[in-house]
Amino acid sequence: MTDKLWGGRFTQKAAAWVDKFGASIGFDQAMAHEDLEGSLAHVAMLGKTGIIPQKDADAITDGLHQLQQKLDAGELHFTIANEDIHLNLESMLTDLIGPVAGKLHTARSRNDQVATDLHLWLKHRLPEIKSAISDLQSVLVEKADEHAGTIMPGYTHMQHAQPITYGHYLLAYFEMFQRDYERFEFNQKHTDILPLGAAALAGTTFPIDREFVAEQLGFDAVYHNSLDAVSDRDFALEFLSNAAILMQHLSRLAEELILWCTYEFNYIEMSDAFSTGSSIMPQKKNADFAELTRGKTGRVYGALMGLLTTMKAIPLAYNKDMQEDKEPIFDAFDTILGSVHIFSGMIESLTVHPEKMHDATINDFSNATELADYLATKGVPFRQAHEIVGELVLKGIQTKTSLQDMPLAELQQAAPQIEEDVYTELSSEAAVNRRTSLGGTAVSNVKKEVKRAQGILAQHA
Amino acid sequence: MTDKLWGGRFTQKAAAWVDKFGASIGFDQAMAHEDLEGSLAHVAMLGKTGIIPQKDADAITDGLHQLQQKLDAGELHFTIANEDIHLNLESMLTDLIGPVAGKLHTARSRNDQVATDLHLWLKHRLPEIKSAISDLQSVLVEKADEHAGTIMPGYTHMQHAQPITYGHYLLAYFEMFQRDYERFEFNQKHTDILPLGAAALAGTTFPIDREFVAEQLGFDAVYHNSLDAVSDRDFALEFLSNAAILMQHLSRLAEELILWCTYEFNYIEMSDAFSTGSSIMPQKKNADFAELTRGKTGRVYGALMGLLTTMKAIPLAYNKDMQEDKEPIFDAFDTILGSVHIFSGMIESLTVHPEKMHDATINDFSNATELADYLATKGVPFRQAHEIVGELVLKGIQTKTSLQDMPLAELQQAAPQIEEDVYTELSSEAAVNRRTSLGGTAVSNVKKEVKRAQGILAQHA
Amino acid sequence: MTDKLWGGRFTQKAAAWVDKFGASIGFDQAMAHEDLEGSLAHVAMLGKTGIIPQKDADAITDGLHQLQQKLDAGELHFTIANEDIHLNLESMLTDLIGPVAGKLHTARSRNDQVATDLHLWLKHRLPEIKSAISDLQSVLVEKADEHAGTIMPGYTHMQHAQPITYGHYLLAYFEMFQRDYERFEFNQKHTDILPLGAAALAGTTFPIDREFVAEQLGFDAVYHNSLDAVSDRDFALEFLSNAAILMQHLSRLAEELILWCTYEFNYIEMSDAFSTGSSIMPQKKNADFAELTRGKTGRVYGALMGLLTTMKAIPLAYNKDMQEDKEPIFDAFDTILGSVHIFSGMIESLTVHPEKMHDATINDFSNATELADYLATKGVPFRQAHEIVGELVLKGIQTKTSLQDMPLAELQQAAPQIEEDVYTELSSEAAVNRRTSLGGTAVSNVKKEVKRAQGILAQHA
Amino acid sequence: MTDKLWGGRFTQKAAAWVDKFGASIGFDQAMAHEDLEGSLAHVAMLGKTGIIPQKDADAITDGLHQLQQKLDAGELHFTIANEDIHLNLESMLTDLIGPVAGKLHTARSRNDQVATDLHLWLKHRLPEIKSAISDLQSVLVEKADEHAGTIMPGYTHMQHAQPITYGHYLLAYFEMFQRDYERFEFNQKHTDILPLGAAALAGTTFPIDREFVAEQLGFDAVYHNSLDAVSDRDFALEFLSNAAILMQHLSRLAEELILWCTYEFNYIEMSDAFSTGSSIMPQKKNADFAELTRGKTGRVYGALMGLLTTMKAIPLAYNKDMQEDKEPIFDAFDTILGSVHIFSGMIESLTVHPEKMHDATINDFSNATELADYLATKGVPFRQAHEIVGELVLKGIQTKTSLQDMPLAELQQAAPQIEEDVYTELSSEAAVNRRTSLGGTAVSNVKKEVKRAQGILAQHA
Repeated sequence: MTDKLWGGRFTQKAAAWVDKFGASIGFDQAMAHEDLEGSLAHVAMLGKTGIIPQKDADAITDGLHQLQQKLDAGELHFTIANEDIHLNLESMLTDLIGPVAGKLHTARSRNDQVATDLHLWLKHRLPEIKSAISDLQSVLVEKADEHAGTIMPGYTHMQHAQPITYGHYLLAYFEMFQRDYERFEFNQKHTDILPLGAAALAGTTFPIDREFVAEQLGFDAVYHNSLDAVSDRDFALEFLSNAAILMQHLSRLAEELILWCTYEFNYIEMSDAFSTGSSIMPQKKNADFAELTRGKTGRVYGALMGLLTTMKAIPLAYNKDMQEDKEPIFDAFDTILGSVHIFSGMIESLTVHPEKMHDATINDFSNATELADYLATKGVPFRQAHEIVGELVLKGIQTKTSLQDMPLAELQQAAPQIEEDVYTELSSEAAVNRRTSLGGTAVSNVKKEVKRAQGILAQHA
Repeated sequence: MTDKLWGGRFTQKAAAWVDKFGASIGFDQAMAHEDLEGSLAHVAMLGKTGIIPQKDADAITDGLHQLQQKLDAGELHFTIANEDIHLNLESMLTDLIGPVAGKLHTARSRNDQVATDLHLWLKHRLPEIKSAISDLQSVLVEKADEHAGTIMPGYTHMQHAQPITYGHYLLAYFEMFQRDYERFEFNQKHTDILPLGAAALAGTTFPIDREFVAEQLGFDAVYHNSLDAVSDRDFALEFLSNAAILMQHLSRLAEELILWCTYEFNYIEMSDAFSTGSSIMPQKKNADFAELTRGKTGRVYGALMGLLTTMKAIPLAYNKDMQEDKEPIFDAFDTILGSVHIFSGMIESLTVHPEKMHDATINDFSNATELADYLATKGVPFRQAHEIVGELVLKGIQTKTSLQDMPLAELQQAAPQIEEDVYTELSSEAAVNRRTSLGGTAVSNVKKEVKRAQGILAQHA
Repeated sequence: MTDKLWGGRFTQKAAAWVDKFGASIGFDQAMAHEDLEGSLAHVAMLGKTGIIPQKDADAITDGLHQLQQKLDAGELHFTIANEDIHLNLESMLTDLIGPVAGKLHTARSRNDQVATDLHLWLKHRLPEIKSAISDLQSVLVEKADEHAGTIMPGYTHMQHAQPITYGHYLLAYFEMFQRDYERFEFNQKHTDILPLGAAALAGTTFPIDREFVAEQLGFDAVYHNSLDAVSDRDFALEFLSNAAILMQHLSRLAEELILWCTYEFNYIEMSDAFSTGSSIMPQKKNADFAELTRGKTGRVYGALMGLLTTMKAIPLAYNKDMQEDKEPIFDAFDTILGSVHIFSGMIESLTVHPEKMHDATINDFSNATELADYLATKGVPFRQAHEIVGELVLKGIQTKTSLQDMPLAELQQAAPQIEEDVYTELSSEAAVNRRTSLGGTAVSNVKKEVKRAQGILAQHA
Repeated sequence: MTDKLWGGRFTQKAAAWVDKFGASIGFDQAMAHEDLEGSLAHVAMLGKTGIIPQKDADAITDGLHQLQQKLDAGELHFTIANEDIHLNLESMLTDLIGPVAGKLHTARSRNDQVATDLHLWLKHRLPEIKSAISDLQSVLVEKADEHAGTIMPGYTHMQHAQPITYGHYLLAYFEMFQRDYERFEFNQKHTDILPLGAAALAGTTFPIDREFVAEQLGFDAVYHNSLDAVSDRDFALEFLSNAAILMQHLSRLAEELILWCTYEFNYIEMSDAFSTGSSIMPQKKNADFAELTRGKTGRVYGALMGLLTTMKAIPLAYNKDMQEDKEPIFDAFDTILGSVHIFSGMIESLTVHPEKMHDATINDFSNATELADYLATKGVPFRQAHEIVGELVLKGIQTKTSLQDMPLAELQQAAPQIEEDVYTELSSEAAVNRRTSLGGTAVSNVKKEVKRAQGILAQHA
């Protein structure tokens, strides 16, 4: 502990320091456009309904337009003294047009204003996310089409299980991102509701027209309860949940791409643009961007957990705790938008090594299931077929002979039902192409699913 | 450190101990019904498509029905030796009907089987959650109707802000729970997809009919990619996200109910059924169930964070990590279903103290906004009106005189625009009833919103 | 989906965009001082051991000193082109002193360099946190001393339970913060270890002297395993855990201060410096800073969860994922330092309303335990004593008579053991002052614990 | 919504259902031993201080001993009707010894009782965790000793970076677990404090002797503030933080072991006891237990986040929310104890493939740093040396020639400083053994660190 007493010193410099702690202008200036947009709709309504004289409304509208231009030109300079984006802009408006600016705040409060800004901000950005996801999906589909027949090992428990195709693999991620797309689409429903008009918490005594404001701003609906309007952050939590699930998908894809770039797998090679080298080892291409994205999963999970915690058990209607809602959303948005873009470029530009992939499927006994299925179709109960094949594989491992290299006599010794036709079913190609069940990895299926995926993408936006 | 070496001892008792660590039967037996249901649909398909002889299918079907009856009768006893619910039931089936049971596993794998069970499990339970939410909403609407005119303080920052009604307050939660309802409804979309037929990871070579199985089980769709089918847990993460947001709402409501039961607020009194006493202080009714639910928010947040973590960066398709998906879902389901039920009963049965609520609005200067709005309608710019009222309130605090008790002359001294009609606007009733803007707290609004809410509820399932 | 293909456009502007995604200079410049400090120690060692000629070491040292001065003067301008703080500073050094700068990187790698910077950064800041906590503890002790005898209700389940003193209450937080202090002290142990010398991952072939470097930088120890040195982030996770637990304490204190400022409780009043008003309602003092800190709990919990997630399941040694370690630490540090300062000022400057606190203890039957204890000392089994008192309290509530106002005859009817001396035990003062058991709320105890607390503080650094 | 009204039905079956929701006996019975142990110490103190007659204390003691025996014999059957472990045992005690049992609760409350139970529970289990960690460390050290010279690739970004030894790798984890050990050791400090005597929240009026009770129970200290005593859960949060960090370590180790078992790496093979096969593919050994542990990381992270959330912003002293503290602790304890044991057995019993490891270091250019270092020692500035080697490696990749296979003339063309002695530095063995800097991977270092590690283990407990 310092020997000087803490208190005395504090009060002398408290003001500035405490103000900085409480101010939000450092980050809520990201909503400057939305704040002006909301104000323009609000003042149009105030004029239209006669709550303030039309000429006052016109003067305010004119001032807000000037602020928009200055904002676009980078000429607005915000100050901590004015605490948040709302007071900063109101102060600037007053500087521009004088005291009539004070009428803008009629029939609204910062509580419904900030909620409106945040709704608008996210409303504008959900389509950006959806579009970025669509782009990534397009890349996946394009590459899946190209690699519908590129055979590679399919893994469970990171062990070779059965051969699949790279195209089939890519389409698995198409499906995941399609669900992400649908989640962000659903996210719009609860984002697209206008809080403005709820005032501080209880509604207002002025004869406002909220539907008019909603129409001006392109909102689908208005909040039907004023307390809910100012205290609801569901749309933000939905966004962060969706972002977290999206990052989970990217982290899985990242993990696999990183592995496939290793010396041991060597299935793919990252393009220079999406890898970093070591000045010392040119063969060493680190999949830095895949790793970084995998790492950023933590950031987005943290943002979700943070806002859930902040919102836990706080009473209605507005509390200052809720000022903490913005940064996680802004940061998660930047993170997922950037990450999805990165993956689009990464996957589009990486080089596939089809021969390495295929080679890995030859002596790995990943055709054991083929033989078991073959036996099952010959009437052997499946569990028993498994056992028979198990013994053959064990023998094969010991003698370093793959199933397709065993003589027929040897196979028949294990199961007399086996005939010459068995060999045509034991190649990786056969294994892949016999899996024509809906959703299976057969090349014809992958081609079919590529078409279906294109149809889905055509309906995006 | 112990002086004996660890290794030797371990191997002697390893088997049982390690098996227990790896076994899931301790919790996945909760899906026994779903496992049997899925097997019944699968075997019907195997018979119909001729993949196995119809008489074998019939024998298996019969055996599965017997298992269903035993399960209902509590006669099935699961063992860790059989690891999980799938192997336990298969082993029991074999005991019942002999080796033909082995044919049931044709064209499927535990990977698609467990995914199917979990989808089915949640598919069955989402309607239960929705129904429980509807019930809670019904209680809120009923009470809101009853208390449409029960005036109480409205809070921001836990400070009295403006008077509202208890009915209006309750409807704010109706809106929140309606969004919860809609989220669980959306959750069905990604739950209602059948994974069965994906087999281990790549589809199967048997001529299965997945749409038939989907129809049997009531699924809306089938997975179109086999890798995705066995590795997807989005539906589970959506469920946990939705559960977390729901608990967030309950935690806020809990917080308020707990406060309102205090000696200091005394706005409500919990019924005996939903509170616990102290054997020593009968006046001490603890809102234990509200507290416990608030506490359980952590449990559900933790379940969400847990599964997100588990799913982070694991490669396709199936990994044993995913065995950890079940317990958080089962536990979160029990928690939210219980919590929602508890709140329905709690709110329905609590006693409201309308006079305490009303009294709290009289001398708290929460009618200050009324006076400012009054001045604004007389043409005073809003920001200036605020200042005038601010000074009057300060004076009132110092002289312990509420605004409505100040003589007209005194008011006019502050603002000459004030006239005799001001007094009619300063009562809590007037403050409430003038807030007729859409979503505002006016009694007429609350009545209108009750009707709208009843309409929404009528459309629930 | 946009109709233009994504790929073509991307490659044109990819470089800048992708570089920005991967660069860390935006945040790791916060470690510029530490990076220079580490380099100075490293080059001193390189010279001393003869790994590079002393005159080269001198030239580099001189250049680093120049960079330090420029940094202090705010004259260094970092660029994304140089990716991170290490390459930015190395590039600047080369500009200053020419190619000899290249020798600085002998026998080190960015992997051990960044780990060293982060260790140093936290090593410098832990004392700041500890000092801020000490300051807050000092305020608590000072106020506890002042209010050792200020009686207020003690709560469980937010219900009045037994009277305590405000001083006793404050000392509960002294204890919590003391544990926080001890946790940050323990945090030093694993922070105070030097990674430098681990090089990329495996150690170096140069005859470096790590102990010398550790001494230069004031580290207590060096990492004994090079892989661990570059991949360990335990010290950071410990810091975030400690920060999370600290915020948990502050959130509880915040919750109570917010409640006590309400119209209903009115036990305290925030100073103007630590509250914000509403321009409309001067009586409305929002405890904004307490609310904001409570809200920031989410931010710190999120930072912890984020880094835990990032670190999950990443292989040794360094991966780019770990670039995500810095921002949560930097942000959590700012948040907790600011929050602790805020609370020191807030608690020191708030006004206590002792009479309101005391009044709340009179008719709340919180002396029921006194009567039960009284009976127990007269030989009545405790559980039975409880029942007797319970009935008396129930009667008191019905007749609006507090226990201390009931006539002796009435009390004796319930329990003949009660005598005249009972009344002296039923006042709040008596209830408080009879609790002299170690840790109890008696004024004499609080005075004693204040002394003990002062002794503990005297030992802080 | 169901057409029947919810309320009516509810009340009929509410009691049982609501009671179940609120009861904790389902899980807090895990503390039955601790509850009895705490009661024995408490009653010993009540007798010794004369608060109750010694013969009553003796009767109670005798009854508690009987309950201990019944508990050990599995003869106690708990009921939800008695809510929690405390009331269950008290009720059983009353059944055994009659109304005198009621005196046991003199001078205590369930608030300090449950806190004491939980402290005791964890106090008993921290040594178990520490011992399990020590065991795992012992296995690591033993295997590191055995494999001090087993060369394998060292990775950064999952790319081959420089050769290391398997022994060196294992010791990295020894260091991590040593920090875990130290964290659980520190955890004891805040666990080893006795809450009993705090009573409900304010201390007690009885002349209790808390130090005596602490001594009986083996506690190092007593809480010095009664409010803190009953509301503190820091020791539990510390435990969960420590558990989370430990799981993070295990998840990283798990990740690597899983990779090393793959077809592609094939560096190790799991023993049968710690892997599961597929009945169809005997070559397919899934590292199930490593995967499951990696998955359980989520469970423990979730437990931490859950309790942090539960504790956020709840006021002093006891609230029912805190009933949620037990399950995460119990579950995390089981999880980490089991996981650590599993890893001890897994690592001890796995088979290493030293030749596969070594082979992987030959043609991977992971000796590039050797050449750069060689040049640096010849006076080439390090950054320039890097460039020269970079070009050589590039050439080597194109011509499929490793550095050690390039003729001297070719090397000298790139850098005239290179001489014949260069070749002795380019083998993996040389690369490893030249890294003798403290913490480096040289075999001699690993041997030295094994000794140091043994010394550390010798000091454990």
